[in-house]
Amino acid sequence: MTDQVESDTTHDALDEYIARYSNWGRWGGDDQCGTANHITPAHVRQAATLVAAGEVVPLALQFDQNGPQTGANGRFNCLRYSVATGSDHALSRQMWAGGPLPRQMGYADDTVVLHLQSATHWDSLSHIFHRGRMYNGYPADEFTANGTTRNGSEVLKAKLVGRGVLLDIPRAKGVRWLDDGYAITADDLEAAAEMGKVDIGTGDIILLRTGQMARCFEEGWGTYAGGDAPGLSFFTIPWLANRNIAAVATDTWGCEVRPNELPDSFQPFHIPALVYMGLLIGEMFDLEALAAACADDGRYEMLVSAPPLAFTGTAGAPPGPVAIR
Amino acid sequence: MTDQVESDTTHDALDEYIARYSNWGRWGGDDQCGTANHITPAHVRQAATLVAAGEVVPLALQFDQNGPQTGANGRFNCLRYSVATGSDHALSRQMWAGGPLPRQMGYADDTVVLHLQSATHWDSLSHIFHRGRMYNGYPADEFTANGTTRNGSEVLKAKLVGRGVLLDIPRAKGVRWLDDGYAITADDLEAAAEMGKVDIGTGDIILLRTGQMARCFEEGWGTYAGGDAPGLSFFTIPWLANRNIAAVATDTWGCEVRPNELPDSFQPFHIPALVYMGLLIGEMFDLEALAAACADDGRYEMLVSAPPLAFTGTAGAPPGPVAIR
Amino acid sequence: MTDQVESDTTHDALDEYIARYSNWGRWGGDDQCGTANHITPAHVRQAATLVAAGEVVPLALQFDQNGPQTGANGRFNCLRYSVATGSDHALSRQMWAGGPLPRQMGYADDTVVLHLQSATHWDSLSHIFHRGRMYNGYPADEFTANGTTRNGSEVLKAKLVGRGVLLDIPRAKGVRWLDDGYAITADDLEAAAEMGKVDIGTGDIILLRTGQMARCFEEGWGTYAGGDAPGLSFFTIPWLANRNIAAVATDTWGCEVRPNELPDSFQPFHIPALVYMGLLIGEMFDLEALAAACADDGRYEMLVSAPPLAFTGTAGAPPGPVAIR
Amino acid sequence: MTDQVESDTTHDALDEYIARYSNWGRWGGDDQCGTANHITPAHVRQAATLVAAGEVVPLALQFDQNGPQTGANGRFNCLRYSVATGSDHALSRQMWAGGPLPRQMGYADDTVVLHLQSATHWDSLSHIFHRGRMYNGYPADEFTANGTTRNGSEVLKAKLVGRGVLLDIPRAKGVRWLDDGYAITADDLEAAAEMGKVDIGTGDIILLRTGQMARCFEEGWGTYAGGDAPGLSFFTIPWLANRNIAAVATDTWGCEVRPNELPDSFQPFHIPALVYMGLLIGEMFDLEALAAACADDGRYEMLVSAPPLAFTGTAGAPPGPVAIR
Repeated sequence: MTDQVESDTTHDALDEYIARYSNWGRWGGDDQCGTANHITPAHVRQAATLVAAGEVVPLALQFDQNGPQTGANGRFNCLRYSVATGSDHALSRQMWAGGPLPRQMGYADDTVVLHLQSATHWDSLSHIFHRGRMYNGYPADEFTANGTTRNGSEVLKAKLVGRGVLLDIPRAKGVRWLDDGYAITADDLEAAAEMGKVDIGTGDIILLRTGQMARCFEEGWGTYAGGDAPGLSFFTIPWLANRNIAAVATDTWGCEVRPNELPDSFQPFHIPALVYMGLLIGEMFDLEALAAACADDGRYEMLVSAPPLAFTGTAGAPPGPVAIR
Repeated sequence: MTDQVESDTTHDALDEYIARYSNWGRWGGDDQCGTANHITPAHVRQAATLVAAGEVVPLALQFDQNGPQTGANGRFNCLRYSVATGSDHALSRQMWAGGPLPRQMGYADDTVVLHLQSATHWDSLSHIFHRGRMYNGYPADEFTANGTTRNGSEVLKAKLVGRGVLLDIPRAKGVRWLDDGYAITADDLEAAAEMGKVDIGTGDIILLRTGQMARCFEEGWGTYAGGDAPGLSFFTIPWLANRNIAAVATDTWGCEVRPNELPDSFQPFHIPALVYMGLLIGEMFDLEALAAACADDGRYEMLVSAPPLAFTGTAGAPPGPVAIR
Repeated sequence: MTDQVESDTTHDALDEYIARYSNWGRWGGDDQCGTANHITPAHVRQAATLVAAGEVVPLALQFDQNGPQTGANGRFNCLRYSVATGSDHALSRQMWAGGPLPRQMGYADDTVVLHLQSATHWDSLSHIFHRGRMYNGYPADEFTANGTTRNGSEVLKAKLVGRGVLLDIPRAKGVRWLDDGYAITADDLEAAAEMGKVDIGTGDIILLRTGQMARCFEEGWGTYAGGDAPGLSFFTIPWLANRNIAAVATDTWGCEVRPNELPDSFQPFHIPALVYMGLLIGEMFDLEALAAACADDGRYEMLVSAPPLAFTGTAGAPPGPVAIR
Repeated sequence: MTDQVESDTTHDALDEYIARYSNWGRWGGDDQCGTANHITPAHVRQAATLVAAGEVVPLALQFDQNGPQTGANGRFNCLRYSVATGSDHALSRQMWAGGPLPRQMGYADDTVVLHLQSATHWDSLSHIFHRGRMYNGYPADEFTANGTTRNGSEVLKAKLVGRGVLLDIPRAKGVRWLDDGYAITADDLEAAAEMGKVDIGTGDIILLRTGQMARCFEEGWGTYAGGDAPGLSFFTIPWLANRNIAAVATDTWGCEVRPNELPDSFQPFHIPALVYMGLLIGEMFDLEALAAACADDGRYEMLVSAPPLAFTGTAGAPPGPVAIR
């Protein structure tokens, strides 16, 4: 396995990576799952053997008004409304189907208004387009006002269950968190794997901790959503591609380092990675409890269960993600 | 273990079961997880050993306009809106942060309006009230227009991972599906367990198939949401309580048989089960693929990962549930 | 004034009317208000003199779950949620800005989810497209996932105030309501004007009663939203165009007769009328109280105030419409 | 007419005004319209005679993401979603009822998520509670999770049409806008009326300009929504009550001066005014165009048409308000 070194003209790197690492057609002309295909039943079976303590660690933010969004770009923190309340029950003001409930019974219900990318979520393979196409070459305009006909979140509803490996970069570097703008390199990834005594291989779900969320828990969200951040260097794409990883989920807004490394670009990593490789990218995962648990017992591999909810035709969706270890 | 036989005056049965099976205080005065506490790390570890084929089976409906809701009681099928589309990208009409996206890049985003009880979901322990109280004795009016301060879905975000057992009642009875109004008895549960060659015990997550959803897949939803249904008899409560099960998830709207068995009642099973036992109840799970897989290889026990999404302060929430077998 | 007679080949009628009655450019290359431009200050001043009794008659449906929508085509009846309730106040459970409200004060707030075409509304001039264009020749793809840059509802926020004339077709014909499928002709319009002793002229807002809503109030909505209906014949376009009317608002879902008169067409009246003439079309207006008032005193002209709410960039919006008479 | 002078113990002023100015029962035990009842047909007829120029001036903000809200207290700027777009039409990607639209036709539709108090709106008489009651003595807990059974916005759908009078306080005082914290007094109201050469009397709709919105248009919204503001002094209540005004609509968030004048209070004016007098209060009206027009020709009285939209059971609702002059 030879990881591609970065080209000296970054502008070319985009096209070069697209050409070199595209998986269009690799799993058939009708594939919609991309690198999630790297996870085979054998991987799942093997991952289940990693459950040693029987501990279940949650990996997601809560959905409420305390989230990171500011409203910019149409992204806001989850709105929740009570359709029925205990207060109304307590006051005998509650009805069901037009009448009072019998036997002193009451109930509560809720409706939420949720931007699917507003907190912990997986991008589906219809989230990013390039030159009028989405993953596997489907026309971008299959994603209309009615959602997408292919590469929606629902195709992943039995995917993203497998071996998870935590790469805790700040811990491997001996810092509390990475600074905004820090570009995580392939060497950083290797060092974190070495610290965790894990090899990274085919079908792995990488849980990549930058520590930015830990900092926000201390200092407030600030510009977390959409601003500068530590994250993967654009030039880690060869490393990720060569290892046949299934997915990478991070604790930042956008997975890749910001400011972005390529001139005249916005989240350029997403183009070769999501559009061409079909890499499943998870964002705003809360890896703090997991990092503490792994640091405590030194076990950095685990069974992960994190399929996105099956919102039909969507560009991404939240999972109820857990590490089982 | 002696299961309580049903009393001859059904009206009394409600109060009797409340008195006999209440778990208020059992896991401390501040508990919010109820029977999910039955699942220990040892159970999770043991459940992981059940993964034999490495197969992942999804257990949820998709969220879209094809769901079972009719709008009655404020419950409607999930609404989805495109915040950004591939069509706009294809026409170079797309902007981000006020300007065009560089490098021929585009994106899609979505917002959903979701009634949390509209499709596959777990009731949280704040979903049902009785005489002004919710599970563990908390005042019902802690559930206000702002949601609930206790017993919300978010407390379960690392729960409901453990041993799942499919009880396929219609298969055990040699029918395609149970009729509406059929009350599943303790004997039916035992017979299905026997067919599946499984014992039911502490910490189990029962996946209870009635076949009603299979019928709806053939014949349309009709009155599925809120109408008549097969389901658990009110009088199975002793059986469930005595076995210390962690949860029961079914393929019907409301878990229990309808029309309801007690006079002057509406979903009376929920009162002793959810309010007093703190039983986690899952509804509208799609168990069809799982039933086929289990029938195929005869293995009816599995690892289940199904924590609800952490919508803060809510009366219930959907999981991204999978059986890993 | 010679109204165009209908051509014998209906397919040609569409193109013929487009050619003959297009107002593109009539009010400048940057106009966004179409026939609302027919209303001048002189018309408004004159309309105000029609206020004789000082009576205010509402012309709109209420927004709630009792509306006509079924969910088809993404159109549903207005959802309303309590953000704060009197129940919570009564139980001293209410907070504002993190603390209890002083002096035994409480409040209620609401949020609605509203499809802007779901009940009484005006179509804006970006609601309908033809051959990639909207009114005044603007490209249809100015209406993106972000709404429209031109012809949005907000441009009409000081329009649609002027002389209203009720044309009560069923009353003029001596029936309670018109049957579904009945195509209202220019002769019918003339006869109703004659009954009301009004002339129709430049800048008038025609309130066109078919009686279909009266029937629905008696018999239920049925297929009101999107189904068969009485309504304007396609061939009334010349009559409307020649009189320079400002707007026509009806008590049906779609203004024009259904089934539609042209072969291979769907709401074809909207094409020459809305896209090319720039005719303001109002739908699902409740004209019952007005019809009763007019029948009572024989005065069929009035001041109408009905500007749509200024939802920026939208394809239509509800007014708070009143007849002042 | 003798306006009550302010008591020297402000705490007492609240109870004193409640006792003195309550209108509970004044218009019957079942009234829901409060001071809107002051407007009689005679007033409407008279108001119509004020239309001199035939000019229609809009009085509302637009509903979009540029509004004043910050998300605090569950109040956010209007969210808008495209249900159908011109982009999809342009790309022949659009469907209706499952099939393509005939004759090269296309359409756009929108759904909004709207907090009813987020921009220009009237408070209904169920918006504020005091000691468990709302206007006319109805129990506060009639406002449940399902909205209110009385005093909802829908009862006002033919109200708030009448004589409007602009009181332009900053203009009368020779300043561009009033400072935050400036309490408008009865003397200020009189002086502005004198400047406008208008008397204030029974049934009038006062349009009260503080200029705060003009400042925000120049300097940004800042803390406009919920922060400090110029506004009516608590002690203008006698002046307003004695004149039998129908309504007061202002260009600020909350009508009354902030910081509030009474100790240990939050928006105390609302208690005697809205809960007891049943005064209709309008907020966030955009009076800039109207102020310019009035200054231009010196006419400060007009016909106003501003009924709130009939959102059933709500605590307030936006009108499509216009001054016709």
